[in-house]
Amino acid sequence: MTVHADLSPTLQLAIDLIRRPSVTPLDADCQKQMMQRLGDAGFTLEPMRIEDVDNFWATHGQEDGPVLCFAGHTDVVPTGPVTAWQIDPFNALIDEHGMLCGRGAADMKGSLASMTVAAERFVADYPNHKGKVAFLITSDEEGPAHHGTKAVIERLAARKERLDWCIVGEPSSTTLVGDVVKNGRRGSLGAKLTVRGVQGHVAYPHLAKNPIHLAAPALAELAAEHWDNGNDFFPPTSFQISNVNSGTGATNVIPGDLVAVFNFRFSTESTVEGLQKRVADILDQHGLDWHIDWALSGLPFLTEPGALLNAVASSIKDITGRDTQASTSGGTSDGRFIATMGTQVVELGPVNATIHQINERVLAADLDVLTEIYYQTLIKLLA
Amino acid sequence: MTVHADLSPTLQLAIDLIRRPSVTPLDADCQKQMMQRLGDAGFTLEPMRIEDVDNFWATHGQEDGPVLCFAGHTDVVPTGPVTAWQIDPFNALIDEHGMLCGRGAADMKGSLASMTVAAERFVADYPNHKGKVAFLITSDEEGPAHHGTKAVIERLAARKERLDWCIVGEPSSTTLVGDVVKNGRRGSLGAKLTVRGVQGHVAYPHLAKNPIHLAAPALAELAAEHWDNGNDFFPPTSFQISNVNSGTGATNVIPGDLVAVFNFRFSTESTVEGLQKRVADILDQHGLDWHIDWALSGLPFLTEPGALLNAVASSIKDITGRDTQASTSGGTSDGRFIATMGTQVVELGPVNATIHQINERVLAADLDVLTEIYYQTLIKLLA
Ligand SMILES: [Zn+2]
Ligand SMILES: [Zn+2]
Repeated sequence: MTVHADLSPTLQLAIDLIRRPSVTPLDADCQKQMMQRLGDAGFTLEPMRIEDVDNFWATHGQEDGPVLCFAGHTDVVPTGPVTAWQIDPFNALIDEHGMLCGRGAADMKGSLASMTVAAERFVADYPNHKGKVAFLITSDEEGPAHHGTKAVIERLAARKERLDWCIVGEPSSTTLVGDVVKNGRRGSLGAKLTVRGVQGHVAYPHLAKNPIHLAAPALAELAAEHWDNGNDFFPPTSFQISNVNSGTGATNVIPGDLVAVFNFRFSTESTVEGLQKRVADILDQHGLDWHIDWALSGLPFLTEPGALLNAVASSIKDITGRDTQASTSGGTSDGRFIATMGTQVVELGPVNATIHQINERVLAADLDVLTEIYYQTLIKLLA
Repeated sequence: MTVHADLSPTLQLAIDLIRRPSVTPLDADCQKQMMQRLGDAGFTLEPMRIEDVDNFWATHGQEDGPVLCFAGHTDVVPTGPVTAWQIDPFNALIDEHGMLCGRGAADMKGSLASMTVAAERFVADYPNHKGKVAFLITSDEEGPAHHGTKAVIERLAARKERLDWCIVGEPSSTTLVGDVVKNGRRGSLGAKLTVRGVQGHVAYPHLAKNPIHLAAPALAELAAEHWDNGNDFFPPTSFQISNVNSGTGATNVIPGDLVAVFNFRFSTESTVEGLQKRVADILDQHGLDWHIDWALSGLPFLTEPGALLNAVASSIKDITGRDTQASTSGGTSDGRFIATMGTQVVELGPVNATIHQINERVLAADLDVLTEIYYQTLIKLLA
């Protein structure tokens, strides 16, 4: 199909972006297209290619006054087997149920289209608005994310740019657009635990030390541990073992070590050092010979009720009639990097039910609603 | 080197057998060579090729009276990397320390040579001996062992052959030849346990069921369980988990199931059904969704003190001055199949320190001692 002229500007742009196959870290000229639109609307453009990752920063307005930044990513996760899709995942279309289908429809080319169209309208309608409207766009959010938002934020911080408010276009909604916004995220702390034993033959266990037998009670205790109670904004810290492997494959050999990979999603009630110490204490109490490689993916962050959250919630109420719910659940996002600047960060995007899946899709009409919500929020904060 | 004429008949035959590269299930004409020798000595020969496995049965003597059978295997385990050996593993030689080196020197071509030479001498010296001297030789003991000793025993049992006593040439000695004989073996019961959970994302653990978390306390309890106390002949039953695997490799995915492989080495104080029920009870107490594929490798067997054990022990004492120790420890052997005929079974062979290893070797002089012990035992039981 072609992009029909009778589609809304948001849907036309969303379809255009989805048709550019920008699997991480590729951008496939999505940013070129967004910059073209924003430049035409009067934004100052600053492409920031960092290593192999395309990013850009764009602003419209004046130095005085608050800065409201839209943030997002043009990259998408791989399609998986293309034959499993009902359509070509990079040939976006709107089906008979009114669903916009294609890789990135929900995560997050739909949001990119909505925020672009909302910003175009806002700067046209309010050319002398307060402060600045900004865009921070990366093509590596789904991948390693080393040279994406994190690196851009470091450059902006180094030159003392200020970001008061940020709306990240991640698909935050669960069943109806705007029903949930994210006002923070839990921290993520990963670990690879090695428990050492002594290899041997199952017929001579007294000559070996079985790391599976040694580790099992410690893993059971870690899995049963209550780490904290959470608080008004965060659920309790959770601990999950994602992988455990031990054994040579032979059925008559006691293995020499066991490796377990686990992850904390932690609230602001726990600290990295505190969790690390409690894990070490449990392992030591079981007398294990152990080693852990820790990997901190992100500290928890929280945007408490204030100007940004109020503007977003009342815009959702104005446009949809819904009382939105602020949540900190779910996985990490680039919001964790932006929050390090002291920025209030809220994630607001379409329904996330199909993200990263075969036949990713969103209700096409929801993207037009999302454009209106973003536009209303711009008015409330910068008009 | 060539086989020097000044070597003993046992060592000449041992070297001849090692030079035939009979990696399981190959026989490489080892049995042809043994049958040639035994046939020349007056034995009746019965080759029994079963599927792809060479075996033979040979007897000398009369229907009346007791039957003493020598049992063993001509197959050897693979050499591993040949360059890691100090010699060509199939070009046996006696080194400067008097060690006979080569794959199978200890397990068990040395024993095959000793029992052949001892039997030759015995039937020459005592042509009208009591009962029968027999040989049961296979070329698949180190492999699946389906078409080896087990299958031969089934054929012998079907035609009502009687085996009163059996000496298996497995290398039973630990530091000095004859210091240990095996008068039984523990049973071996293997299992592959699958614990089912529900796959999910680590950020949404309430939507998943983590099989690692669910299984850990049950595995800990199984590892800590005291299964029995053993008895005068057997150590307590032991339980070892040899492999545990769960996880997709991704650090943010809760896996859908966990697989653990474990093995019982069990005494005559426990039964297969009893162990299976106790495992099931523990898994059920932990509320697991589980499945086990069981594999019984062998029931325990025991030869209590009697004519055979007495003859072997007193022959060892006569030849070496040592008091041998009867033991049921260690791995399985073909003795488990022979014992099913109600036969008294003892394993007696050279020092097992290097079996299945690079640079497998035995003290050459020990094989001549072993020949004398076998010969004395023949005299005590059948002269
Ligand atoms: Zn996303
Ligand atoms: Zn063997």
